[in-house]
Amino acid sequence: MTYCVAMLLDTGMVFLSDSRTAAGVDQISTFRKTTVFQQPGERVMVLQSAGNLAITQAVSSMLRENLESGAAQLNLFSCRNMFEAAQCIGEALRELHRRDAAALKQFAVDFNASLILGGQIKGEAPRLFSVYSAGNFIEATAETSYFQIGESKYGKPIIDRVLRRSSSLNEAAKAALVSMDSTIRSNLSVGLPLDLVLVKRDRYEVARHVSIDEDNAYFASIRKRWSEALREMFAQLPDPDWLRTPGAAALRNDPRSGTG
Amino acid sequence: MTYCVAMLLDTGMVFLSDSRTAAGVDQISTFRKTTVFQQPGERVMVLQSAGNLAITQAVSSMLRENLESGAAQLNLFSCRNMFEAAQCIGEALRELHRRDAAALKQFAVDFNASLILGGQIKGEAPRLFSVYSAGNFIEATAETSYFQIGESKYGKPIIDRVLRRSSSLNEAAKAALVSMDSTIRSNLSVGLPLDLVLVKRDRYEVARHVSIDEDNAYFASIRKRWSEALREMFAQLPDPDWLRTPGAAALRNDPRSGTG
Repeated sequence: MTYCVAMLLDTGMVFLSDSRTAAGVDQISTFRKTTVFQQPGERVMVLQSAGNLAITQAVSSMLRENLESGAAQLNLFSCRNMFEAAQCIGEALRELHRRDAAALKQFAVDFNASLILGGQIKGEAPRLFSVYSAGNFIEATAETSYFQIGESKYGKPIIDRVLRRSSSLNEAAKAALVSMDSTIRSNLSVGLPLDLVLVKRDRYEVARHVSIDEDNAYFASIRKRWSEALREMFAQLPDPDWLRTPGAAALRNDPRSGTG
Repeated sequence: MTYCVAMLLDTGMVFLSDSRTAAGVDQISTFRKTTVFQQPGERVMVLQSAGNLAITQAVSSMLRENLESGAAQLNLFSCRNMFEAAQCIGEALRELHRRDAAALKQFAVDFNASLILGGQIKGEAPRLFSVYSAGNFIEATAETSYFQIGESKYGKPIIDRVLRRSSSLNEAAKAALVSMDSTIRSNLSVGLPLDLVLVKRDRYEVARHVSIDEDNAYFASIRKRWSEALREMFAQLPDPDWLRTPGAAALRNDPRSGTG
């Protein structure tokens, strides 16, 4: 599995992805799931991927080759705005579907790929899109400050609690890392190293691209502190006192405590 | 959806379930997902269910009717130990499968039901089982202190962090409620009221069965305190300082920051 999260903030964007790819527990490898496309001063785009690795790698290869060859079609550097760029990702997926889906079906493999595209092209505000296997997509609006793909549920509650559009890039990066930590602890198939990309609004280039592994002092310290603080905070929550009442009396008062 | 969690501790067991059943967003109802079967002083069993409500209701009705009619087969009160009781749940599921699966298939409905059975019969320690749709089941061992069914991922990280076999019943109830809170916040299809059942070891009856709704002062207070404490604790985690380094320098130092 994979876990990727991308956040759209007033001051820019944060992208975090893991790098574990598992095709069964004895076939675990490390693959980057984040690709950056940029023309500094002009446009910056970050693409994250989850799902069938052969498909998502083919998408980013196709897009990269088209940039290098200056292709007229499916060229992220000739898109006039981020909406066109998201269409371009969708079209690349559909192209691959036409090419591969029938062959995959013969081996009972689903055509399964989800992508997140975020970035900014000069003349627009930063925009964030979530692109589905069918090539259709949705865009983050004022009420949505983030998208997730892959193994997203373990790490969702903490983001829902702390992230706002007005969060700083550093706060958002911290939230993404805590969310990733919860995911890694609960799901073996999500693992280090992580790719963290920070994009500042109106700079049109990546502000920072960090690879985070076991030796990263900051990530190690927040994992440890978060874990300790959670346990301490949990211990400080008052215990219920339901057991102080004698059981039989409580039972008689509660008609739902049916006995067979 | 549904979220149920059951915990096996040194001093007893804790069962928590929500009560929301959704067949589409405009058809949301409240159904209890916890059933208690007990002969005080002799045996106590708690059954939780997730999946197709028609199937899981039929299972508990069948078991209840068999108790009332004193049936020779599939009778939870004649099982000699909890393993036999789990087999009994599995057999009830298989019986229903024989009766209903073909008809369900004609309407493209999966035969989908997961059950958790926990309890204690005199002469044994408390035991906890997770029963699958096919009627097969697994038992919690020394390394496993809890089972979840239904929408389990949102609420898993906090349990993984704080629950031990040695946790008290009150601590475990608190962990279950915090886990449920995270689930309710992230998934609309899990909702109040909750059913919380506490079973003390070697008492052979339910110690407490509480129905928790919006007006429950304890649940309201821990939801509020947990939420505030999480945000405060998150704010206290140090921010990363990756943005202090000038972006361009950082980029040059990191070969992975490829540009298209």
